[in-house]
Amino acid sequence: MLKIYKIGGGIIDHTEELHQFLDRLASDNNQKILIHGGGRGANRLLQQLSIAPKMIEGRRITDQATLDVVTGLYAGNLNKQIVAYLQKVGANAMGLSGADANMIQAKRRASQQIDWGFVGDVVENGVNHSLIKSFLELGLMPVFCAITHDKNGQLFNTNADTIASQIAIAMSKHYEVELNFCFDKIGVLADIHDENSLIPKIDRNLYAQLKAEQKIFEGMIPKLDNAFSVIEQGVKQVNLVHAQNINSDIKTVIC
Amino acid sequence: MLKIYKIGGGIIDHTEELHQFLDRLASDNNQKILIHGGGRGANRLLQQLSIAPKMIEGRRITDQATLDVVTGLYAGNLNKQIVAYLQKVGANAMGLSGADANMIQAKRRASQQIDWGFVGDVVENGVNHSLIKSFLELGLMPVFCAITHDKNGQLFNTNADTIASQIAIAMSKHYEVELNFCFDKIGVLADIHDENSLIPKIDRNLYAQLKAEQKIFEGMIPKLDNAFSVIEQGVKQVNLVHAQNINSDIKTVIC
Repeated sequence: MLKIYKIGGGIIDHTEELHQFLDRLASDNNQKILIHGGGRGANRLLQQLSIAPKMIEGRRITDQATLDVVTGLYAGNLNKQIVAYLQKVGANAMGLSGADANMIQAKRRASQQIDWGFVGDVVENGVNHSLIKSFLELGLMPVFCAITHDKNGQLFNTNADTIASQIAIAMSKHYEVELNFCFDKIGVLADIHDENSLIPKIDRNLYAQLKAEQKIFEGMIPKLDNAFSVIEQGVKQVNLVHAQNINSDIKTVIC
Repeated sequence: MLKIYKIGGGIIDHTEELHQFLDRLASDNNQKILIHGGGRGANRLLQQLSIAPKMIEGRRITDQATLDVVTGLYAGNLNKQIVAYLQKVGANAMGLSGADANMIQAKRRASQQIDWGFVGDVVENGVNHSLIKSFLELGLMPVFCAITHDKNGQLFNTNADTIASQIAIAMSKHYEVELNFCFDKIGVLADIHDENSLIPKIDRNLYAQLKAEQKIFEGMIPKLDNAFSVIEQGVKQVNLVHAQNINSDIKTVIC
């Protein structure tokens, strides 16, 4: 079983919680891959550098200055701090961007209305799964940041959830893959106000029913749609789980 | 023959020259490793962030804020820009810091007089040569920045010449190694003012003679001392060479 974990800003911005998560990760002897997002550090650094955000429709445009900041922060600071901590607690982590060893090839996001700047979407068959397999067989734990490239010299800022999904799908060629999206809830709740209402397992039938009953919280729908899509493309199981519960049964299993 | 190249600020700060160097590197079919220093970008970024330099005896102390800046810049921006360009021109480059896969272990520089901050020196047997060999056998070209770790969660700023030397020595267990220090001269000159006075080859006898005749430029002595020390520890050949001449015979060979 290959376990793939994606963590985002909610945990990356809290060093103590991040370290507790990495401790748990290191204590699991399965083959593993970690993908991390960026957190709020980029906004802070852009402010400190007096780089005014370029926004369109409330969303930030990744101009050259912003790309430089996120590349330094994600591929440099965050990735290396995570790797150094995992090395300390006994996991043989190795940090990677999509450019390294041509791991994840992307193309600039095309849009007729809005130029998003240096934002890349993973191309079809863009994940170098056979080399990731070689690294796993060498006993390494790949740790990906959300920076990709186009194999033509251009780096891109890329959505970390998408990278995690694409890596999971690609690795399904070689392994039974479990993909864990770690977030700030214990899973999908039947009642958003009741932490005891965790739904432990959702299949397509239950998902249809929950949607019909309007019991699914709106922000959850894209996460669940993506989870089912990933499963259709070969991933064995997707978990929505709080970072503190990865080694427990408290989670929502999508299958 | 494994060829190892070290480049420093003189070339890193000039994008066009850097790209020309990387073009030349990619066109050489030998197995290769690249080590890069930092350049002047760190000072610029520290200024922009209003981080006042802490200096002792004219040398900068690597405090936490400085370490964060150099980690982002060296392991993030510079390393990934170099890797992305090498990928474009056909070399399967993979960026690494010393923390990644526990590649280069260091310890904090001990000093009774001055605390240099987060500056690390490579420990004995600190280079993970067997894993570097595995990467080379996978067809990869490792690209190292000058960031190391202590395997206890701490990152360090480390001298890039030292990293190049230690990697070259360690890889000599497996390969005939040629180590190239690329710099802004065409090699060692008999007359510092005459570019036609290149000394193509220096052995220990000639070195002793040149020093006795005071023909060696002062800044060259530590470079040559280091080159002979590296050769004594198993490296086949050390070249002092201008980055634009790596595929030519215009260089000083130390052997």
